[in-house]
Amino acid sequence: MNALLTDEYQLTMLEACLHEGMTSQAVFELYVRRLPPQRNYLVAAGLEQALELLETLTLDGAELDWLACRPGTSARTVDCLRHWRFEGDVDAMPEGTVFFPDEPVLRITAPLHQAQFVETRLLNIVHYQTLVASKASRIVTAAEGRPVVDFGLRRAPGAEAGLYAARAAYIAGFAATATSAAGLRYGIPVVGTMTHSYVQAHASELQAFEAYARSQTRRPVLLVDTYDVDAALAQVVPLVRRLADDGIPVAGVRIEGGDLARHARTARTLFDRAGLDGLDIFASGELDEHRIARLLADAAPIDAFGVGTALAASSDAPALETVYKLQSYAGEPCRKRAGSQVSWPGLRQVDRFLGPDGHMAYDRIRRDGERTSGGAPLLAPVMRGGRRVGPAPTLQDIRRHHQAQMRLLPARLRGLMPDDGSRYPVQISDGLRSLASSLAASDCRGRSEADALP
Amino acid sequence: MNALLTDEYQLTMLEACLHEGMTSQAVFELYVRRLPPQRNYLVAAGLEQALELLETLTLDGAELDWLACRPGTSARTVDCLRHWRFEGDVDAMPEGTVFFPDEPVLRITAPLHQAQFVETRLLNIVHYQTLVASKASRIVTAAEGRPVVDFGLRRAPGAEAGLYAARAAYIAGFAATATSAAGLRYGIPVVGTMTHSYVQAHASELQAFEAYARSQTRRPVLLVDTYDVDAALAQVVPLVRRLADDGIPVAGVRIEGGDLARHARTARTLFDRAGLDGLDIFASGELDEHRIARLLADAAPIDAFGVGTALAASSDAPALETVYKLQSYAGEPCRKRAGSQVSWPGLRQVDRFLGPDGHMAYDRIRRDGERTSGGAPLLAPVMRGGRRVGPAPTLQDIRRHHQAQMRLLPARLRGLMPDDGSRYPVQISDGLRSLASSLAASDCRGRSEADALP
Repeated sequence: MNALLTDEYQLTMLEACLHEGMTSQAVFELYVRRLPPQRNYLVAAGLEQALELLETLTLDGAELDWLACRPGTSARTVDCLRHWRFEGDVDAMPEGTVFFPDEPVLRITAPLHQAQFVETRLLNIVHYQTLVASKASRIVTAAEGRPVVDFGLRRAPGAEAGLYAARAAYIAGFAATATSAAGLRYGIPVVGTMTHSYVQAHASELQAFEAYARSQTRRPVLLVDTYDVDAALAQVVPLVRRLADDGIPVAGVRIEGGDLARHARTARTLFDRAGLDGLDIFASGELDEHRIARLLADAAPIDAFGVGTALAASSDAPALETVYKLQSYAGEPCRKRAGSQVSWPGLRQVDRFLGPDGHMAYDRIRRDGERTSGGAPLLAPVMRGGRRVGPAPTLQDIRRHHQAQMRLLPARLRGLMPDDGSRYPVQISDGLRSLASSLAASDCRGRSEADALP
Repeated sequence: MNALLTDEYQLTMLEACLHEGMTSQAVFELYVRRLPPQRNYLVAAGLEQALELLETLTLDGAELDWLACRPGTSARTVDCLRHWRFEGDVDAMPEGTVFFPDEPVLRITAPLHQAQFVETRLLNIVHYQTLVASKASRIVTAAEGRPVVDFGLRRAPGAEAGLYAARAAYIAGFAATATSAAGLRYGIPVVGTMTHSYVQAHASELQAFEAYARSQTRRPVLLVDTYDVDAALAQVVPLVRRLADDGIPVAGVRIEGGDLARHARTARTLFDRAGLDGLDIFASGELDEHRIARLLADAAPIDAFGVGTALAASSDAPALETVYKLQSYAGEPCRKRAGSQVSWPGLRQVDRFLGPDGHMAYDRIRRDGERTSGGAPLLAPVMRGGRRVGPAPTLQDIRRHHQAQMRLLPARLRGLMPDDGSRYPVQISDGLRSLASSLAASDCRGRSEADALP
């Protein structure tokens, strides 16, 4: 089902391109048009799955049969898809990179019909992981070093979203996920506690806690908010001692509802008095970066957080304006400019400049190949002729890269609220400006000498 | 990967239930806690995929290996999963049904360890489709009978979300989808136009329009907003005539950007003057129900709409508070009541009462089996002993059911803005209230005679 996970107009366009023989080299760039209102930066994610798509895209028998029976699909198109192999190049920002609107995250160079055909699913993959990584990075910042765990699967939009959310959150610094399949598929640490229903099914909370603790070989976390949190906590202290005597070390408690700060303080006080300072207090339940920040500002003694819905739905900004635009065809730069939507033409590169304090000072988008100095280019080759350039980075590498990026980010941009007065500066190079002006006069692709790419 | 698409705590709970032999009959109900701020009703969707999950859930070799190597999983648990077969019952509202907070959409009756284990993925499936169907129903209302097409895949959260969004939108009355795979998988009508990049890759818009039209066997729709819409429209009129002479009937134009109302009026005027009143005007580009309503209030002569991001992300309400709660265990009703989160206990049914005008007047949630009269029960048996009761309804059946539901919905609830003064009344039956009070006094499951289920 991979190949037909696309917009129907990719099939009509494939038909048209093959009909006309318009299969010259095309360059598309994927970027985000605008920052969501409350955001200061975005985090690139999804490249690994995008490259997997390009490497493995093929049609299965059912898809080919369906296409062949479908009115409007020529034998030529079915044949092209039957023998599909992506032969293009990809340049991209490494996953985990902090980036800004208008900056290309991914560039595809391939025959037009190939580069166009993969558009929809490329966007689908990169959009959602970038969305979640960008949200997760803020949540990690809010937690000020405390571990955060992805609890998103139940309200994630479908199966793949659950897996992608776990991966993107881990890239952005989450400590673990509750999604077992993400452990199997990506090697992300997986953690699990206990359910309310299990407590309810027992004659008493105490019985449930003890039975659960005795059934596990991993250190159990007790869920204390099925009924009355204070009553549950009072039972936990003697139980933890009793279990410790039997060699069962309880890891801590989880509180999901109610006044999390108050409950956490009650728990911490009880545990401290009982000398059980090794017990962790784990909070979850409709948390997001703002609620976590408020809890910590309120000095709530919480050791770790679980975040689900707000992460998987990126609730304050449920979509990004990701686009995939033709930048050049057959060596000539292109520009779309309908109404207010004007794009920068041609192949682009992003240079990042650091200030004297070692933090990011500004980015500059320039023409690829335009002379520059002092900045570090963000896009690098990752695929040539349909094959990867070098081995894929591990998830740990990507995670470390994002940590390093966050150390470079100026403090004002790490904050949870946007500071419009100090938006990160993204400059446009002189070369790119003059290419754009030279195209402004023409109705379509530039055809003059001046427009030729370097 | 199906079975491990779950929260890790389903594995710890499975371990604990098997350890203790807690495998008595449990009843869970899936419902939504609250309406999103701007909504008046919700639309049930996802049941078909939920039943598929229950019918087909098995672990593959990689999953079993991973589990066996994982610390904390006993041989007993691995064995249970190796021979997994869901043997429970399901009662549910038919897909497409309009429903309200606290009303059970789905009820699972099965041995505790089975009913608990499927929680996460059941929620994952039903949550997202219900979310999108609920959004789509509003968009269809806003379009006042004009066809609306799902354009959501590129910004849908992952592959499955793209497919589910197409399906849920179709249930709620969308006319078609742009997602080819949704045509193959669900038989939903698929439509596609042309891309901006194709226009850009040509030396002129006119060349692109003509080449595209001549390459298609289905009636082409011309995308007129790559550069200047007015200029493109002026070229369309003579081209359409010329193509008609050659036996190629253009279906219409698509406008994605700029002032859609103005562009549509320009197009309609041009087409009318030229006697081309058969050409349709198709609008898309960051549309949602409110923008569509404004365009139509502004008398924009638009014949059909494409809606993508706002649909797939359910942008005004990117998640619903769906929960899956234990209602009874071993024949005894359960109730969770931590802080403000108090749930209604026991097995429940929803009766819907119509008023003298034939519209829905109110719903009443009662104990399953409690005597009632005059209302129509919304939950019906759909699975018994792990096997479906009767054949699955077709997507067309489901779509018609939703249409019928919308005809029953009072006009004030069909509006796009919430009318808090006239929220749809959902009553609680006397029997359910008295069961709840009898449980209020106890700390956990009720154990008295009075609590026994009917």
